[in-house]
Amino acid sequence: MNIHVLSLFPDMFTGVFGSSILKKAQEKELVTLNVSDIREFSDNKHKQVDDYPYGGGAGMVLKPEPMFQAVEQITQGRKPRIILMCPQGERFTQKKAEELAQEDELIFLCGHYEGYDERIREFLVTDEISIGDFVLTGGELPAMTVIDAVVRLLPGVLGQEASHIHDSFSTGLLEHPHYTRPADFRGMKVPEVLTSGNHGKIEEWREEQSIKRTFERRPDLLEHIELNKRQLSYLEKLKNEK
Amino acid sequence: MNIHVLSLFPDMFTGVFGSSILKKAQEKELVTLNVSDIREFSDNKHKQVDDYPYGGGAGMVLKPEPMFQAVEQITQGRKPRIILMCPQGERFTQKKAEELAQEDELIFLCGHYEGYDERIREFLVTDEISIGDFVLTGGELPAMTVIDAVVRLLPGVLGQEASHIHDSFSTGLLEHPHYTRPADFRGMKVPEVLTSGNHGKIEEWREEQSIKRTFERRPDLLEHIELNKRQLSYLEKLKNEK
Repeated sequence: MNIHVLSLFPDMFTGVFGSSILKKAQEKELVTLNVSDIREFSDNKHKQVDDYPYGGGAGMVLKPEPMFQAVEQITQGRKPRIILMCPQGERFTQKKAEELAQEDELIFLCGHYEGYDERIREFLVTDEISIGDFVLTGGELPAMTVIDAVVRLLPGVLGQEASHIHDSFSTGLLEHPHYTRPADFRGMKVPEVLTSGNHGKIEEWREEQSIKRTFERRPDLLEHIELNKRQLSYLEKLKNEK
Repeated sequence: MNIHVLSLFPDMFTGVFGSSILKKAQEKELVTLNVSDIREFSDNKHKQVDDYPYGGGAGMVLKPEPMFQAVEQITQGRKPRIILMCPQGERFTQKKAEELAQEDELIFLCGHYEGYDERIREFLVTDEISIGDFVLTGGELPAMTVIDAVVRLLPGVLGQEASHIHDSFSTGLLEHPHYTRPADFRGMKVPEVLTSGNHGKIEEWREEQSIKRTFERRPDLLEHIELNKRQLSYLEKLKNEK
């Protein structure tokens, strides 16, 4: 997969793109990650990429030309998905990550402080994505977040160290608690069942903990999954205790 | 505000903490951002910070000692909020950002691949925060996201270049479209009202566009705000057109 990012702060990406899974995925040539400075695509001799808003008001607005020119220079006639990171966009979910992981090429547009000229949104962009209802200084962290979620799904990217993870949002239930040594840490002890050696009991305990945690923290998730008879009877018990 | 981050991948933070608003906020001495490697706090001569899970299963679990020791060395008896970034946590919102911005000190714990020993969650952490229902390779990007949202709220951090932003999640409505020069870009034109010079009409248009966009994209937000009579009548019109 080829990923291109357009940003006014390309240096923001160095640490994240140069570490851990994203670094390894590039070394294995499973993904290319390119970050370009939008200013490089300005015709203006001062490399100006923003201008005052029509109709007045404080603040600056990103001009359409540099963004269109940057995208056209990258795509060379290809038609990849062009993703605008913005708080008004569709909420990012694991399902969206899985969908984007099917693509060969993705382009991410990140604004910073400014608004965008609406023509970028209307005529250039194919997807608008938000990572949540909070205000950030730019689209860079949301773009990195989406890229991390997508790249780790590409075949071959996750080694054994990570692929074991019970993904809360693929099993439908939240994860059960984990414990490791020491069994007694300053008087805080590991549940006895986990050191019992009884694998049937351990599985049962973990399943119940998953259901309990999901029931307590994210009951909305329970509406979307089918539980078996034993799981349902445990859930009923929890509801009656409440 | 003093912010400490504990991570297995401290290099991930360099680009984000060294750019833009977070860089300026540190230069103005409005915030300190410290990132420590959890491995530094391991007693183990191999700097081991994880171990096999009790009860069996694939994958490794972060041990309790290094995390407790790291936090204790930082806090020296103070009782700051200790935030675990994890998908099971409370969903991060602008309201949570405003709440955290009131604190003098915050500590963020980031896992990576592994699960956490449950005793960290139960006895060390005061807040568990999730940025959304998707799977990332670690808590680093979520921590950066929360830190960016919180630091930009600290008094004095945002200069004029950014403070103008109509925060979608503080006004309650999504932002209206923005336009800047050129008025005609490849045949794509700016709405006439914005070049009319009639400020009353411009304000009216912007307000209607905000309501329209919120109605189309995020009708849930309309339930939480009080509209005035004119706004309500415009909303009724939209509903009837649908």
